[in-house]
Amino acid sequence: MDAAQEAQNREAFRHAVVNTLERRLFYIPSFKIYRGVAGLYDYGPPGCAVKSNVLAFWRQHFVLEENMLEVDCPCVTPEVVLKASGHVDKFTDLMVKDEKTGTCYRADHLLKDYCNDKLEKDPNLSAEKAAELRHVLAVLDDLSAEELGAKIKGYGITAPDTKNSLSDPYPFNLMFQTSIGPSGLSPGYMRPETAQGIFVNFKDLYYYNGNKLPFAAAQIGQAFRNETLGYVLLYDMHGLCEISPRQGLLRVREFTLAEIEHFVDPDDKSHPKFSEVATLEFLMFPREDQVSGRAARRIPIGEAVSEGIVNNETLGYFIGRVYLFLTQLGIDKDRLRFRQHLANEMAHYAADCWDAEIECSYGWIECVGIADRSAYDLRAHTDKSGVPLVAHEKFPEPREVEKLVITPVKKELGLAFKGSQKMVIEALEKEAMELKATLEAKGEAEFHVCTLDKVVTIKNNMVSISKEKKKEHQRVFTPSVIEPSFGIGRIIYCLYEHSFYTRASRDGDEQLNVFGFPPLVAPIKCTVFPLVQNQQYEEVAKSIARSLTAVGITYKIDITGTSIGKRYARTDELGVPLAITVDSTSSVTIRERDSKQQIRVNVDEVASVVKEFTDGVSTWGDVLWRYPTHSS
Amino acid sequence: MDAAQEAQNREAFRHAVVNTLERRLFYIPSFKIYRGVAGLYDYGPPGCAVKSNVLAFWRQHFVLEENMLEVDCPCVTPEVVLKASGHVDKFTDLMVKDEKTGTCYRADHLLKDYCNDKLEKDPNLSAEKAAELRHVLAVLDDLSAEELGAKIKGYGITAPDTKNSLSDPYPFNLMFQTSIGPSGLSPGYMRPETAQGIFVNFKDLYYYNGNKLPFAAAQIGQAFRNETLGYVLLYDMHGLCEISPRQGLLRVREFTLAEIEHFVDPDDKSHPKFSEVATLEFLMFPREDQVSGRAARRIPIGEAVSEGIVNNETLGYFIGRVYLFLTQLGIDKDRLRFRQHLANEMAHYAADCWDAEIECSYGWIECVGIADRSAYDLRAHTDKSGVPLVAHEKFPEPREVEKLVITPVKKELGLAFKGSQKMVIEALEKEAMELKATLEAKGEAEFHVCTLDKVVTIKNNMVSISKEKKKEHQRVFTPSVIEPSFGIGRIIYCLYEHSFYTRASRDGDEQLNVFGFPPLVAPIKCTVFPLVQNQQYEEVAKSIARSLTAVGITYKIDITGTSIGKRYARTDELGVPLAITVDSTSSVTIRERDSKQQIRVNVDEVASVVKEFTDGVSTWGDVLWRYPTHSS
Repeated sequence: MDAAQEAQNREAFRHAVVNTLERRLFYIPSFKIYRGVAGLYDYGPPGCAVKSNVLAFWRQHFVLEENMLEVDCPCVTPEVVLKASGHVDKFTDLMVKDEKTGTCYRADHLLKDYCNDKLEKDPNLSAEKAAELRHVLAVLDDLSAEELGAKIKGYGITAPDTKNSLSDPYPFNLMFQTSIGPSGLSPGYMRPETAQGIFVNFKDLYYYNGNKLPFAAAQIGQAFRNETLGYVLLYDMHGLCEISPRQGLLRVREFTLAEIEHFVDPDDKSHPKFSEVATLEFLMFPREDQVSGRAARRIPIGEAVSEGIVNNETLGYFIGRVYLFLTQLGIDKDRLRFRQHLANEMAHYAADCWDAEIECSYGWIECVGIADRSAYDLRAHTDKSGVPLVAHEKFPEPREVEKLVITPVKKELGLAFKGSQKMVIEALEKEAMELKATLEAKGEAEFHVCTLDKVVTIKNNMVSISKEKKKEHQRVFTPSVIEPSFGIGRIIYCLYEHSFYTRASRDGDEQLNVFGFPPLVAPIKCTVFPLVQNQQYEEVAKSIARSLTAVGITYKIDITGTSIGKRYARTDELGVPLAITVDSTSSVTIRERDSKQQIRVNVDEVASVVKEFTDGVSTWGDVLWRYPTHSS
Repeated sequence: MDAAQEAQNREAFRHAVVNTLERRLFYIPSFKIYRGVAGLYDYGPPGCAVKSNVLAFWRQHFVLEENMLEVDCPCVTPEVVLKASGHVDKFTDLMVKDEKTGTCYRADHLLKDYCNDKLEKDPNLSAEKAAELRHVLAVLDDLSAEELGAKIKGYGITAPDTKNSLSDPYPFNLMFQTSIGPSGLSPGYMRPETAQGIFVNFKDLYYYNGNKLPFAAAQIGQAFRNETLGYVLLYDMHGLCEISPRQGLLRVREFTLAEIEHFVDPDDKSHPKFSEVATLEFLMFPREDQVSGRAARRIPIGEAVSEGIVNNETLGYFIGRVYLFLTQLGIDKDRLRFRQHLANEMAHYAADCWDAEIECSYGWIECVGIADRSAYDLRAHTDKSGVPLVAHEKFPEPREVEKLVITPVKKELGLAFKGSQKMVIEALEKEAMELKATLEAKGEAEFHVCTLDKVVTIKNNMVSISKEKKKEHQRVFTPSVIEPSFGIGRIIYCLYEHSFYTRASRDGDEQLNVFGFPPLVAPIKCTVFPLVQNQQYEEVAKSIARSLTAVGITYKIDITGTSIGKRYARTDELGVPLAITVDSTSSVTIRERDSKQQIRVNVDEVASVVKEFTDGVSTWGDVLWRYPTHSS
């Protein structure tokens, strides 16, 4: 099968999945009667139930299992917090504007489309030109506003809709801006992630945990990104819009994040429960393998840590736990890989970073990021707020330590850095340890000043750094944070693709859709059908419904006169694991979705059988062994 | 006890509750290290767990029990939706501005404070003046911008902080405004309620329900109101702020709503399960009793419906279910009442409206609104979107019906209403039925034109209304909606006050705080204490912890060497129902929080005992009967 054919198959598969998802109201384009808003979707009843099941399992698997401190912070966030985190200044896309109509486009998208288009469709492209375009695509993410602008001008790229000329690229902040209170004087944003709410509470949470490390805090909540969407709304015959298949359900403007911030001593990133995951083996894609063009390969996570592929045990532990979480939800382990960030993808402060990527019809999609962000976030908020977000380790005995003392030579520094002098000194004091060695060895050293966001060169004559001996009673340090961050909507979408299959109807005249959800995530655990419309059967169905509610099982009754085959097809399309057909007043038929096997169960045992199967206490095999099978 | 003493006691009680809530991190002022933002709070770990328990119970009690269709819509909402709902034009507070500093105040608050202050503190106030001020307080909510402005000027009210003069009152919209997408051309708002997301989806949800009425949809989610807050932040010695006790936790800018929209045929508002709640008897406060100065009284809900105090069975059913929900959470039934809206509180379209009010130290607080909103919302979105949000009832046989045909006399209408003519005609066509009778009887009729928002007088010569006979195959109608809307944060705060008590410590030298939460809402179900710091006991504690996790029970281990009494006090203050003290390797002591009774249980039975008690399968009495008591 060639690439074009494969792409077409993927599109057809996606179309079938998305069509089913929409028709059965897993998703509804938000505000559809008003023609919708690009990038906003509702979860309709079954979608909402799936989401709620995924979040309940997340709480069970992470929060409860690890005794995490769950918090719930507001979405509205004052500017100062997002200034400290860097989002106000750096959370931007470079945009260009149609100079006549004012329509905005992402500069990198236009350039990318141009390059791909040329490479695919221009038969006269020289080998040299093709190589150039391929290089542009490779370095696209690293281009500055000026470089992007020069390329766009150079290639003569115009607005795709109007062919008008385009403005120079300018940064557009991706946060939804608003104003807090009636004065109009307090700018705020809708949070772009939930993590900052945890960082600013570090001090209280550390205290709550008895001033002990490590501990993890967690938060589930909405996050907002005012993305530019290359979006198509299709209108049906009633003028109502349909979801466009162009990454529609993956790239949205409001989404649910579930984030964990695990705070740990930077000098000890071991994890007491690492041995529980060490033998797990799954697809990993280390940086080295990506760079040298090798494929992802199965590595036991214990080995990945011991060989230094994964930076530390705690990061490795979470990678293992994420693997268990995703596969237990129903993600296919062969279409799940952990990809390490390349050097240019990773923030300068990060120690290591892995994405759980799931393969779907759009390709490999980042669904969970697992990063060791070192002490960056807590330091940034310490600096900005003036409240030290630090941990203490009391020594049993006071310790004698050598301390570095920095004495800046103000005159020299003033000459070299002028107005920035103060910030350079403050930054110097923080990073003195590593610096001293370099200064002594080379006579000068480069280092990064956060508050200036640039690298400066310090010469030996600008500071004196000396050693002093001191007694210390405790160690005060900024903890490192290891952050697993889950895009719940993306995980759910991939789960839909991995769970979807079709099979021939009984007559073989049509293909029927099935979502093969594990009971854990199935939106409804069973349906109840009276075989024929008759009062006796309906009474039995209602009494079964009551007994299901009593044990907390969700169900749907279908009392339409439709054929039982059609009702099975409907229920399979919603991914309901069990269908109960009331065909007598004393016992019923229970049918399992994937095997289509049927058993006979007494009416008063129905709720408990359904419960043990959907709770995962018994498999279908276990149940099948205990009850007589039924052949229809 | 006089009123002043009572007020002081309430303040002291609230101070004790809020102090405990903050110290134990049930709440944290959001972004506290940046001095916080008025009206924004985080739920810290125990608060977040309580919230999560309350929401899980809400889902169980309403969504699951009634088979409701739960949906999940975005917070970001385009302007057109909130224009249709009326929020863009009418969801405002009247504000006045300090003419020099620009500080904003709510006009009605300033006027209210002025009147109360005069009435309380001015010994020279004439009886006449006092009566006038009391009248102003009584009609405060009905005053227009002009009337408010005139009073403020007339009384010479100035800005409270600076004594500067104030601007005229102007409307300030309470929604957080933002902009969708990078063009800046699509205004949007953060939703002020979750209901609109359900209304705009009516058509799809009705279809999902097999085109059958009644059905209910439900949504849990964040809502946003950019309130003006009469707010005080208190700073402690470290410069960190503290929650001010001025309605701080009740009046917030972002909060979780849980809303139900129950769609029903306006001609049949009976409820099949009404008999299940009919005998419930609780405090009700009908409109008549409020107006005539009587107190709230206990009325069985069945009687309230049959006597017409509550408009219909469905509304009554939900009032009963809300009563069960709140009291099962732990709200004191003697401090809970259902108060009917007065005529001036209720929207003109509403058929009836009741608030569940809970008494706490701030007085009676509205926590749940239960309203029959008739067809208003669906009609508003039908009009604005052009998509008919209607239901159909197919007749078994075609029916002959008399239809009213309206022929407007355009000349007369044009003369009377000029530019508004078209809207008057459209509105006329909608309400012809009632109008015809009045026109025939009186020669003229008043009626309300929604789109003009005023009442006009129509004379007999302006329209002709005649009857025609037609065959109809179905009835097409806009469903009524009955809306129970829950302010989750307010319910939780009241629950804290109702659950809080103090008792003397063992030595009698201090008062200890206890939150007497039912196990259902307790943030942590049990604590595990090794009696002394010893490895054997810690191992037992850990194995108990594992068995608790396996059955889904939340716990906290406390391995500090603190005295057992202190550890009990800590756990009581978090409202943990059971404390497990490991004082041998084979069996442990389990202590119940409120009775302080202790029993001895074998290590391997601990998890199941804790589970059956906290799941509500057994009472403490049941458990006590089965295990030997332990006296310490």
